[in-house]
Amino acid sequence: MDLKIGIAGLGTVGLGVIELLAERAALLVERCGRRIVVTAVSSRDRHRDRGVDIGAMQWFDDPRVMAADADVDVIVELIGGSGGVALDVCNAAIAAGKPVVTANKAMIAHHGAALAEAAEAAGVSLGYEAAVAGGIPIVKALREGLAGNRIERVYGILNGTCNYILSAMSDNGSDFDDVLAEAQRLGYAEADPSFDIDGIDAAHKIAILASLAFGTVPNLAGVHTEGISRITSLDTTYAAELGYRIKLLGVANMTDHGLEQRVHPCMVPQAAQIAQIEGVFNAVVTEGDFVDRTMFCGRGAGAGPTASAVVADLVDVARGNVLPTFGVPAGQLRHVQAASMARHVGAYYIRLRVIDQPGVMADVTAALGDAQVSVKALIQHSHDLGDGASVVLTTHETGEASMLQALKVIAALDTVLEAPCMIRIEQL
Amino acid sequence: MDLKIGIAGLGTVGLGVIELLAERAALLVERCGRRIVVTAVSSRDRHRDRGVDIGAMQWFDDPRVMAADADVDVIVELIGGSGGVALDVCNAAIAAGKPVVTANKAMIAHHGAALAEAAEAAGVSLGYEAAVAGGIPIVKALREGLAGNRIERVYGILNGTCNYILSAMSDNGSDFDDVLAEAQRLGYAEADPSFDIDGIDAAHKIAILASLAFGTVPNLAGVHTEGISRITSLDTTYAAELGYRIKLLGVANMTDHGLEQRVHPCMVPQAAQIAQIEGVFNAVVTEGDFVDRTMFCGRGAGAGPTASAVVADLVDVARGNVLPTFGVPAGQLRHVQAASMARHVGAYYIRLRVIDQPGVMADVTAALGDAQVSVKALIQHSHDLGDGASVVLTTHETGEASMLQALKVIAALDTVLEAPCMIRIEQL
Repeated sequence: MDLKIGIAGLGTVGLGVIELLAERAALLVERCGRRIVVTAVSSRDRHRDRGVDIGAMQWFDDPRVMAADADVDVIVELIGGSGGVALDVCNAAIAAGKPVVTANKAMIAHHGAALAEAAEAAGVSLGYEAAVAGGIPIVKALREGLAGNRIERVYGILNGTCNYILSAMSDNGSDFDDVLAEAQRLGYAEADPSFDIDGIDAAHKIAILASLAFGTVPNLAGVHTEGISRITSLDTTYAAELGYRIKLLGVANMTDHGLEQRVHPCMVPQAAQIAQIEGVFNAVVTEGDFVDRTMFCGRGAGAGPTASAVVADLVDVARGNVLPTFGVPAGQLRHVQAASMARHVGAYYIRLRVIDQPGVMADVTAALGDAQVSVKALIQHSHDLGDGASVVLTTHETGEASMLQALKVIAALDTVLEAPCMIRIEQL
Repeated sequence: MDLKIGIAGLGTVGLGVIELLAERAALLVERCGRRIVVTAVSSRDRHRDRGVDIGAMQWFDDPRVMAADADVDVIVELIGGSGGVALDVCNAAIAAGKPVVTANKAMIAHHGAALAEAAEAAGVSLGYEAAVAGGIPIVKALREGLAGNRIERVYGILNGTCNYILSAMSDNGSDFDDVLAEAQRLGYAEADPSFDIDGIDAAHKIAILASLAFGTVPNLAGVHTEGISRITSLDTTYAAELGYRIKLLGVANMTDHGLEQRVHPCMVPQAAQIAQIEGVFNAVVTEGDFVDRTMFCGRGAGAGPTASAVVADLVDVARGNVLPTFGVPAGQLRHVQAASMARHVGAYYIRLRVIDQPGVMADVTAALGDAQVSVKALIQHSHDLGDGASVVLTTHETGEASMLQALKVIAALDTVLEAPCMIRIEQL
């Protein structure tokens, strides 16, 4: 009995899914005991040449109609967007008793809990392996493979564009703008790159991973989000000198003050496994109480890896497995308060541009001391900065509120020439 | 409705499973919708103090009787050994219609296909996540998460003892015997270390991974197996000089001549992700045609990580998922001929101890040329080797038969003082 698939959205991922299902048809029959066949498709323009023959598939102008069609068993939603047609299609499929597979991180981050409740009430599954970290089967790992553990922390390199840019800046000493332009030429960054470089994409993904890890309702609004555009080649150079690499990480952990979720550039020790993940690769690290640290890495985007993840969800459906969407029944997902970043505790890297004159260091260290921030290392560089010099320091663990208080005082010093650059140091 | 577990074997892993199921009982109810309760145990000595209260569990002197007991739903086999009681217990459980979960790599490598056929005929699952790479959910990844891909190659660091020893040799320039003794003191190596250091443990694991990756009957006898005891501190030093690290890898890939499975020390490029995996950690890399390269790393042994894997299999059972044991129905697993190592193609590192006199290099290079082996780099070192010098060379890709032919001629030269050391260079 064939599993009949309707695909909504024929972009590169949709075509990748069609290609994979065709090229690996025989293998999938062996692995699932039945064929997985694309019988219906829907997209905006029926007549566009996609280089793929969709003539044997039923065409629907309206994917919502396709979702309700009796000749479709499963809907694969690849339209995108957190709501709108994408959400309508998924709700229509679930209402018709059909499993849904999606790569739509925005929809899952915003509406995942409600969709999961509807799907579980209908007894169908909602697969979204492709929504986080591309081809890496991290949703399955957290929901199933590590299900015996209380997860202490989950973090990762969740955006390949940012990791490509930061890797290139570190390796070549290049500036952000130049590397971004190069990434755009190579197709690693969009013409409007803000969704990636401002950390928004990674924020969606860490919100989903946090839900899986902690059994909480996805809370995108609770993710403290900073991008990478303020990182300079000075920072990547100093990072190397101090034994770090700069990575944009998404991090989630449960604290006494609630769920801490944050996306921002981090200084990670060069010896940490995740520091070795370069270019467009993604990596997710989970820390479980019994399994300890586990790392999963691979390609986080692209037609092939994303299709691989979509098809993994289809294989689960074809094999008859119905799993709790976020690892626990959706109705039991907890609403947990977001921990304020002001209560974050960690070490910090601070870079200042100052007037190169006596007394500056004394003012800076006084401001830190007044805020109870303890300095670990302090380096002054008289690089070629026109009339200024660089002061770089790292701190011992301190509260973020104290750190910000000190930075406010420091920024107001006459001898400090521009806004201080602060990058959090992660203990991994 | 509780899932009632009977555990056969109360060593460190068995006690770890009892501890995990007790400590995470509430979490597991949320995740599975039912309790997972150890109701019965069997081990050799009932009265030994294990530091764990087993008073509430039914005791069985004979685990085969426990396997047939009506008050046990699932058997967890942690006795060990490829056959004997362990195999009897699993067969008894399957005959009684009960799922089996095991950490027994020897049993799965030797009898996995027959056990899987029996389990699938009985409609029960056979879980063995804990048999490969400890806490890393790699069985689930290959069987489910990457199921849309034709796997091109799978390889990994599958033995933490060997990786600890090789890491320490590389980092400290120590000799094998000293590091082994240290590993034994630290509990990372057994008193009789041969199962680990001779590559036998890793051979079991790559045989299981190959079965999952290629849909073949596990073929332990077809694994070409070499250990690490012949590696010297000279080799780790030269490796670093040449841009490599030495790792014991298990590698499996399908060739035109059959399934190549091998475990041996490898020179891996320092920049390869797997070169960064140090100490007792394990890592598995899969290369799929759509997903490309994916790496999974974590702890490969120990009570906690192994218990995590055992419980992941129990969670699958508790959730009602029945999966094809090796990714395809066991009756469809193919018998594929083992590719002879003589047909292996790759690059090689060769280290020779020679008499430090003119003409030696000419003899060595002539032997290589006669066998059509092309030299990539050749370095002569007059280290403190008594009356000798070291010659180290690397080759371009060549057939292993040619390489062995050349080595035979080289070993017979009067100017070569001891058996050549050959280490394969992996393209990763």
